[in-house]
Amino acid sequence: MPKMTPEEFNALLAEEMPWATEAGMRASEIARGRAVLRQPFGQSMLRPGGTISGPAMMALADATMYAAVLSGIGKVKLAVTTSFNINFLRKPYPGELVAEGRILKLGKRLAVLEVTIHSEGHAEAVAHATGTYSIPPS
Amino acid sequence: MPKMTPEEFNALLAEEMPWATEAGMRASEIARGRAVLRQPFGQSMLRPGGTISGPAMMALADATMYAAVLSGIGKVKLAVTTSFNINFLRKPYPGELVAEGRILKLGKRLAVLEVTIHSEGHAEAVAHATGTYSIPPS
Amino acid sequence: MPKMTPEEFNALLAEEMPWATEAGMRASEIARGRAVLRQPFGQSMLRPGGTISGPAMMALADATMYAAVLSGIGKVKLAVTTSFNINFLRKPYPGELVAEGRILKLGKRLAVLEVTIHSEGHAEAVAHATGTYSIPPS
Amino acid sequence: MPKMTPEEFNALLAEEMPWATEAGMRASEIARGRAVLRQPFGQSMLRPGGTISGPAMMALADATMYAAVLSGIGKVKLAVTTSFNINFLRKPYPGELVAEGRILKLGKRLAVLEVTIHSEGHAEAVAHATGTYSIPPS
Repeated sequence: MPKMTPEEFNALLAEEMPWATEAGMRASEIARGRAVLRQPFGQSMLRPGGTISGPAMMALADATMYAAVLSGIGKVKLAVTTSFNINFLRKPYPGELVAEGRILKLGKRLAVLEVTIHSEGHAEAVAHATGTYSIPPS
Repeated sequence: MPKMTPEEFNALLAEEMPWATEAGMRASEIARGRAVLRQPFGQSMLRPGGTISGPAMMALADATMYAAVLSGIGKVKLAVTTSFNINFLRKPYPGELVAEGRILKLGKRLAVLEVTIHSEGHAEAVAHATGTYSIPPS
Repeated sequence: MPKMTPEEFNALLAEEMPWATEAGMRASEIARGRAVLRQPFGQSMLRPGGTISGPAMMALADATMYAAVLSGIGKVKLAVTTSFNINFLRKPYPGELVAEGRILKLGKRLAVLEVTIHSEGHAEAVAHATGTYSIPPS
Repeated sequence: MPKMTPEEFNALLAEEMPWATEAGMRASEIARGRAVLRQPFGQSMLRPGGTISGPAMMALADATMYAAVLSGIGKVKLAVTTSFNINFLRKPYPGELVAEGRILKLGKRLAVLEVTIHSEGHAEAVAHATGTYSIPPS
């Protein structure tokens, strides 16, 4: 069983990153070690060429990692990103983004995560990210 | 001489990433191959523990890289981030963030950049990022 | 069909990185966009604590990315790594390492790759790497 | 005062990574939080096009980070790389490589490091790396 439900994560997100909730970001699925987040399309996310901005995808990937970490350790608010790496692969379609995250390693002090983002209805990944979270001593 | 002034970059930022301009992000200095951007403190950037959110620092670092690239190649709107890596080093102070970026390499097809972020009035870095930009054929 | 067989890749490896071939590194499978490389265990790869050294895993991951790129573009000797990122997840067992690589994106100028390394006979990943290769104009 | 001298580090390197010592890798300077390592040129490090191989530069960067970490914490053998990121910037000259490393952050559990590599006698960087080391509880 995951230690956090999508509803619990979305409530936490609204509290911690209200700007993300306002932009429509939300978790749609959380399993133990895995999370799916969605970001609806908004004009404010565009940059020239009609591409969704890099920072919008970084924010989505980071939040997806956070949800995946919390699925494994529960509501530990002080878990923080220590490193984050992303490769942008293709121009996203102007539609909803779907981010699938999973835990690669869950240690006592450090979690390592992977996220793949694609455009709803399209199979190919538009971005791939990895990152590490530091877990505070309990 | 840089191929873009802070005023020109700020006008471009307002056009391309209005949310960043609305949050107060702006270039204060641009030299050939170097750029300094600032992000004033806003309550909306906080996350638990009073820390400025990771995504806010990622967005600042990415925009700083963009300014540094454009200082070398001029207003090439379709230059896009292809990879981005950031290490979070220390908890920022609740004040303005200052990001200093520089070009590590400017090739015909690819630029590599480095950004260091610190809190205004404090010497130690709070985050360090590197990234690559793809430059479209002219 | 892959544009290179394991035999062809191993011949290229012996020519380009004789030290890797001498240490037993070899491709065992190559499909279009995918490659599996193996690195037998050798005492010289150890570091304190009995762990296989980080650089030995980096070399294996980088060679696996090279094989995966060449599976898609054929024998293009001047394809070069432009960036490389690795997370070390768990202490490897003192046995053969198996690296599975795949292309995340194959563009005209840039390929992005992912590699997962595990110890033979053990399911959990010991390292996860991503990287980019620059492809010379043909 | 650094907590390790170049002589002490070179003795440790010979013990832990004899292949590196045999290839001529050595520390030439260590200050608190900083280290300079050198890698003489050897034909075995070449790859097509006369370029020094990526893995040879990765190994040099990783060892330089290790020396910089130990300059701050002393001979802690079980400090291990947890993540490593490198950007290759320019083709090195066929001569000695010089790697300069420094600590970006030294925490109780995690150190973050930066390394710049250049060819002896040439100012421009050929590679830039960042990485994190996990520090065991003392």
